[in-house]
Amino acid sequence: VKLSQIGEFGVIARMEPGAIVRPDDVLCGIGDDCAVTRGRPGWVRLVTTDLLVERVHFLRSAITPRQLGAKALAVSLSDIAAMGGIPLDAVVSIAIPKDLAVEELDEIYAGFKGLAAECDVNLLGGDTTASLQDLVINVALTGEVEEDRVLYRDRARPGDTIFVAGTLGDSRAGLDAILNGRSEESDAARELVRRHHEPQPRLREGRLIAASGLAHSMIDVSDGLSADLPHVCERSHVGAEVFEAQLPLSRELEAYASARGLDASAFALSGGEDYALLLTGDERLGAALAASGVALAAIGRVVEDGRRELVRRSGDRAPLAPGGWDHFRSVP
Amino acid sequence: VKLSQIGEFGVIARMEPGAIVRPDDVLCGIGDDCAVTRGRPGWVRLVTTDLLVERVHFLRSAITPRQLGAKALAVSLSDIAAMGGIPLDAVVSIAIPKDLAVEELDEIYAGFKGLAAECDVNLLGGDTTASLQDLVINVALTGEVEEDRVLYRDRARPGDTIFVAGTLGDSRAGLDAILNGRSEESDAARELVRRHHEPQPRLREGRLIAASGLAHSMIDVSDGLSADLPHVCERSHVGAEVFEAQLPLSRELEAYASARGLDASAFALSGGEDYALLLTGDERLGAALAASGVALAAIGRVVEDGRRELVRRSGDRAPLAPGGWDHFRSVP
Repeated sequence: VKLSQIGEFGVIARMEPGAIVRPDDVLCGIGDDCAVTRGRPGWVRLVTTDLLVERVHFLRSAITPRQLGAKALAVSLSDIAAMGGIPLDAVVSIAIPKDLAVEELDEIYAGFKGLAAECDVNLLGGDTTASLQDLVINVALTGEVEEDRVLYRDRARPGDTIFVAGTLGDSRAGLDAILNGRSEESDAARELVRRHHEPQPRLREGRLIAASGLAHSMIDVSDGLSADLPHVCERSHVGAEVFEAQLPLSRELEAYASARGLDASAFALSGGEDYALLLTGDERLGAALAASGVALAAIGRVVEDGRRELVRRSGDRAPLAPGGWDHFRSVP
Repeated sequence: VKLSQIGEFGVIARMEPGAIVRPDDVLCGIGDDCAVTRGRPGWVRLVTTDLLVERVHFLRSAITPRQLGAKALAVSLSDIAAMGGIPLDAVVSIAIPKDLAVEELDEIYAGFKGLAAECDVNLLGGDTTASLQDLVINVALTGEVEEDRVLYRDRARPGDTIFVAGTLGDSRAGLDAILNGRSEESDAARELVRRHHEPQPRLREGRLIAASGLAHSMIDVSDGLSADLPHVCERSHVGAEVFEAQLPLSRELEAYASARGLDASAFALSGGEDYALLLTGDERLGAALAASGVALAAIGRVVEDGRRELVRRSGDRAPLAPGGWDHFRSVP
């Protein structure tokens, strides 16, 4: 059997049986943005791990080493944000091809440590080894969150409003610009490429959302809205209705898509690596967060039956189908 | 500047500045087998991360997927053992080339989970992604140890006896057999290849050594005695004298080296990946551990001045020079 036949989530499903041998301290194992275990009184501990592989997740010719170091940490920070957590300690493993100069390695660490310092994260240790071909970086990151505030992806409730913190599609449009030689064609393209290479983990937003007490579920948009919202639906045994007209699109994405003659919504729906937060909860959440200066876009609602629908601008309804990143299927 | 010019430890040195931004909870960051942070009352927390890269650390044609999964965890378990600790929770990241069958992935997880269950380790989560070329596995593992029992590598004292738990050189001899087409030439060769592919983390020994209260420093032998003992010396500001005649050599290594016309001690001194424990402490440690059924070989002593010497069987003295694994220098 080929891996491409079972896909990324098939792979994950095969990992789960027998994984937990001491269940007492485990609140959530494989299957959410982070694993959750008991922590100090009133708190739970979070842990996540993310692997970036050259030619799958990045092109060394397109991203700077400094951006790469920061991005390797950012994707894990986003997982902590998606649980409502505070990041704590990281360990980083790097496999280094022979043609990487020491100065580039210094830049990778500088990028990593710059973002780590900003987010109050300790770099506790690591492993550094050789690679014959691809540059590979793994970050394992711990965090914590108050026991009564942690937000899982499997707690969406019928009637919830669906919100997004951040814009959607920018990163995918930036990748489109890189792959099609359009990185320099406009200010909008340049900015989208920058967003693709410098994702911002939404830690502050995650904390405020968790503290509001009005959110029921949360996930980060790493694989694209049309892939990540179905995860929430499946795990929560609910459906969802999303309104195309309400998707949070950046000015830059609209300008770029328009110049390309493409649909900005398509980038927003199927684009991975935005690291926006996707959450469901009480409709008053938007107003509550606005008071703290955090803009949430209300993009739809959770429904009781299993349908997952996109309501187009025209009023037509289309199935919300995963067209996001599946690494085993999207690699050429 | 090329990475090969600064070596593995040069790389690590570049990682350290600015790595710790919240020092209060950190007892030991980069530079020991594990990072050490404050834990529950009376205990400290341990964390380690290890990356295995195809063609650098293993050949897919030589190791079975089940052995590979177990080995990826074993190298991290050995880091916990070297601090005297109890392992707790692991997260595993895998980058999978397209030609790996699902059945092989299942075997990797089966190997990992088999050893994890034996050692009471939870597999909390992971990341699974594609790779265009090499299979890559990263394991990040936490553990804990009593605050007053944790063993660092920088506490060796002049006058200490140097001990080894386990035999030295078997793994290197197994690799020699693989690389020279001699894996099947004898029972000894087969057993050495097995030891290369199935290293045994010495968790029980590590716990008993820590509990004895007689050990002062400990490290695991992952890069070879002649590379790892100098780490202890440098960090502890001491020297060491090792007696060739007292190196713990297995029957299989002696038989294999003799059939090859090679020096068994050379394998023991420069061979990596044994995952034996190297420790220093009170001379009575050997007798104390023997009572628990753990054999320690007393191989030398810690001296005040900086010399690192090997006393050969002949009585001649030779500098104990690192000839162990340095990934940046040893890769062809």
